[in-house]
Parts: sequence; C-alpha cells; structure tokens
Amino acid sequence: MKLMDIFGALKRDMDFIERQLYRSIEGDDELLSETSLHLLKAGGKRLRPVFVLLGGKFGNYDLEKLQHVAVPLELIHSASLVHDDVIDDAGTRRGKPTVKAKWDNKVAMYTGDYIYAKALMLATQLENPELHRILAKAMVQMSVGEMEQIRDFFNTDQSVRHYMLRIRRKTALLIAISCQLGALASDAPAKVHSLLYRYGYNVGMAFQIRDDLLDLCGTEKSIGKPPGSDMRQGNITLPVIYALQEEELREPLLQEIHAIRAEGSEADTSRAIGMILSSPGISRAEQLADRFIAKAMDALECLPESKTRNHLKEIALFVNKRSY
Amino acid sequence: MKLMDIFGALKRDMDFIERQLYRSIEGDDELLSETSLHLLKAGGKRLRPVFVLLGGKFGNYDLEKLQHVAVPLELIHSASLVHDDVIDDAGTRRGKPTVKAKWDNKVAMYTGDYIYAKALMLATQLENPELHRILAKAMVQMSVGEMEQIRDFFNTDQSVRHYMLRIRRKTALLIAISCQLGALASDAPAKVHSLLYRYGYNVGMAFQIRDDLLDLCGTEKSIGKPPGSDMRQGNITLPVIYALQEEELREPLLQEIHAIRAEGSEADTSRAIGMILSSPGISRAEQLADRFIAKAMDALECLPESKTRNHLKEIALFVNKRSY
Repeated sequence: MKLMDIFGALKRDMDFIERQLYRSIEGDDELLSETSLHLLKAGGKRLRPVFVLLGGKFGNYDLEKLQHVAVPLELIHSASLVHDDVIDDAGTRRGKPTVKAKWDNKVAMYTGDYIYAKALMLATQLENPELHRILAKAMVQMSVGEMEQIRDFFNTDQSVRHYMLRIRRKTALLIAISCQLGALASDAPAKVHSLLYRYGYNVGMAFQIRDDLLDLCGTEKSIGKPPGSDMRQGNITLPVIYALQEEELREPLLQEIHAIRAEGSEADTSRAIGMILSSPGISRAEQLADRFIAKAMDALECLPESKTRNHLKEIALFVNKRSY
Repeated sequence: MKLMDIFGALKRDMDFIERQLYRSIEGDDELLSETSLHLLKAGGKRLRPVFVLLGGKFGNYDLEKLQHVAVPLELIHSASLVHDDVIDDAGTRRGKPTVKAKWDNKVAMYTGDYIYAKALMLATQLENPELHRILAKAMVQMSVGEMEQIRDFFNTDQSVRHYMLRIRRKTALLIAISCQLGALASDAPAKVHSLLYRYGYNVGMAFQIRDDLLDLCGTEKSIGKPPGSDMRQGNITLPVIYALQEEELREPLLQEIHAIRAEGSEADTSRAIGMILSSPGISRAEQLADRFIAKAMDALECLPESKTRNHLKEIALFVNKRSY
C-alpha cells in the first residue's frame, strides 16, 4: 500500500490541515457550522490538500502558509459538492445523507455560498494577489462547467471533445491549481508551478474519467451509491459517448437512455449499462485515462528527482487503478 | 431633483461602468451570459457603483482602477439577489420575471455562483490584497446574514438588536465597503476610508429599514410587487417587531401572522398590515432610520468639504425620503 506511505509521511501535517478545516467553519453561525461540519465530516480523500502540501515541497515548505491554500481548496471542492447535490437531487454522498436531504435545498445553497466565501477569505490572508487571481479564475471556470453539466443532461449528441472541456472545468482545473498553488505559495521557481499544473491537470482528467467509469462498472458497495447514477441524472459520460459511436449499438442504447429519462430517478439502468459494458466504450475510456496519466508522468519527469516526485507518481498510479 | 444632478455629474463614468458590467458576464457560456444579462438588465439604482466612484473622489480618482471595484460590488449584489429569489420563491423582481421563474432554481443557483466568482475574478485584477480581503470578508458576512434570514422566518420573538445584526450583514456591510473600497483603491488617507465606511454603514442600515417600511406602506405600483411580501415570506421586519411590543396588539397580531403562515404565499396580509400601520411601529422604525441617517451625516462632517461630500449628503437624504 504505497499510497498509505505517502499519507503516512504527510500524516502530521494533514492532521493539522484537517483541524484547520474544521476550525475554518466555526463561530460565524450555529446552523452554518453544523451544516458545513456535516459536509466536511462526510469525508473524502482530501486529495486537494495533499497536492498542495506536495507542491509546497518544491519550494520553502511552510505549513503555516500552505494551510491558507490547502484549506480553501478543500472548501471550494466541498462547496461545489453541496451545490451539486442540490442539482442532482442527491439523497446520499459517500453513504451519508447530503445537506440537502438532512436539511433542505435552501440551506444547502447558502451553505455552499458560505463555504465559497469562507474559502476566499482564508486565501486572502496570504498577501499574494496572483494566488487570489488564480483561485477566482478557477471558480469562474468551475461554475461554467457546472452550468454546462446541467445543460448537457441527456444530450446524447455531445462529442468527446465537449465531454473533455466539461470535466476540465468541473474537476481537472481545481486539481491542477492545487498542485500549482502549493508551489507558488512556497516560492518555488515558476517553471515548477507550470509543470505541477500540467501534472495536476492530467491527473484530474484521468481522475474524472475513472470516476465516470466507476459509476458504470462499480457496485453499490464499492462506490457508496447505486451504480448508474450518472445515467439516471442524464449525465452522459465518456464510455456512453464512445458506446453511442458504435453503429449497431447506437439506436438501442438511445432508446434505453430515453426510457431512463422517462422513468426518472428510479429508472432501471441495468440494460443500458449491460450494453455499454459489452461495447468498446469501457476500454476506450480506460485508454484515454491512461493517456492522461502518461502525460502527467511526462510532466513529472521534467521535475528534479525527489521523494516528493515519487509520491506524485504513486498518486497518479493510484488514481488510475481499476478498482472495479 | 438633486439626486439627478449627482447622477448627472457621474453620468459619463456610470455609463462606462454599466458597459463594463455587461461586458463582465460575456463570453464564458451562452446560458450564463443570458441569465446574468437578464438579471443585470432588471436594473436597480447601481447604488454601490455610485458609492465606489464617489469614494474614489477622495483620492486619486482613476476610473480604470475603480471599475475593478465598482463592477464586482454590483455583481456581488446581483448574485445575492438571484440566490435570494430562489429562497423567497419570488416570481418577479422590479416588475420583471426572476431568473428562477424564467428558467428554474438550478439555473438561478449556478447563475449566482458564476456571478460571485466573476466578481472576485475582476476584483483580483487590482494588486491589492487588503481589498481582496475586505471583499471576501463581506461575502462571508452576507452569506451568514442570508442563512440567519431563513432561520428567522416567522420568528416573532426576535429583538430589535437581532434585526439590526441581520440587516447589517444583509445590506449595510456591502454599502459600507462600497464607499470604503472606492477610497482605498484611490489611495485616499486611511482616515477617509473609515469615515466613508461609517457613512456607508449607516446609510445602508437606513436604506434597509426604509425598504422594509416600503413593503408595508407602499402600493403595488410604487414597489413593483404586492405589499406585504415580507410578511408572506415570514420575514419579520422592524415595524412588525415594534408593533409586537405593544401590549394590546401583540396577541391579535401574532394570530394574524400565524394565519398568514398557514395560508402560504397567497395569504391576505391586509389585516396584519392595518394593525401595524395603526401602531407606533411605523413611526418608531422611521425614527430609527432617521437616527442612522444622522450618524451618516456626522461621519461626513469629519470629511473635508467638497462637492462630493455634498453629493453623499444628498444621497443619504434621498435614501431616507418617505416615498409612500
């Protein structure tokens, strides 16, 4: 378990980040603290803070400073999830009730607004306008990606390029800037920021493709929610786009997707998933994820050899692991 | 019409700000541009940009710089309105359909997220971490105020102090920093920032009290929506809190409010409004607004005499004008 070793090496610092994360949402308002804490406690891998700290290792590593990057990035990620759950009408996330399910949509919306603002407030404690600018730009792109996602629900005519643009905004950018800003806040050389950005971008793309694959290939136990959730929401992911490119499969699969749309949130996706699994869609998506990981590795090769660089390699391999 | 004179003096610059406001939401995404434009075109007095420009007159007035404060502040205000409309389930604002009514709640939520992020992105073009910090802090406070407002719906036991804390966050802070940041971005002396903040804070408090009075004392024609909207939403405003302090009125008014709550969004508020209008609640709220305006004037007295200072005086008087 090499990934455990990486987290092991960072454990003390990540424990500090975890505490600061909880502290960041204390004290303004009882309800907001409660909903935000509920959201943060639902957990997650804290991948973005890990990338910030690893990025920081390429410069003058200073945890006091890096917390003002790591905590905001995890908060921005969390805020986007709580707004996502409103859109997806999601009852659970990682096996726990969502804020919108435990409270309601309105509370979830303002919880997200609060956490976004809080993230920026913490980041602005660093006297670094460039960092503020990169963060705000990424938030714009994320919100564009989220709107695209709504508009593309059940759009079965979208291209691979279109899908990639969407996941770039939705996922890859925030991971890219996590790596970049860790280095930036630590005054690492500019060349290092941009290599880490490239690494993070490519890892983020692979990460989202793998996540989309998991929703089709995983089990309820392995993914913490019923498989096929994306299809029921109308989220047309890469393996589906590829499957729709198969001449003999296109029409029957379109019919299945239309039926799922008509049946709504309780729709049976097993036939559609069966079709996709038996198509080249899965392996083609896997190949594309592999290509992104290869590009991430290329970016790493240009960085000086170090323990940290090895850690980043291990994370890239972990992200791309077939866990279904 | 002295207020017209002020806007007349600023007209060319405000036209520029208006164009930049429209430009700011162009080009990222067709739907987001459309919804954001719809929101901005619904208009408003552009009070926050006016305050930014007037604040700027106390230093080295530079419109190129000030746009990066004025546009973000109007955007933040607009984003808060579009999220407000989701919460209030509002069909119209200023006589026009809201984003949530013309599209839906999800589109309105992401439109707000986008405009917030865009506001920050524009503000970070100024190399001024202090300004970024003040802006982000105000956004945190605004989101806290919004959550408080939801939680306080139909809370008939709230104190005047509690109401004031809420409108401080909801309204006064953003107006306060509009005045302050205009001066800050123009390198006016620190003493001037804080006097302008004090002026803006007090004007903002009076502004919200007047707005709350208008909802009780205005007509559908004068306020662009049916009077009593606040009561139907459960928003307990200052005149209501004062009226509830009247011993012989408390019980019957509570009963009316409970009935309004039970009847929902179509409830008849005329009896409740009648009770409040015949109570000392209106004049006591007016007196409090007057006191805030007097404090705003005190802050102005400490500033050097100038045409701009006179303009700020006129705006304070205008805000406090009884237009019902």
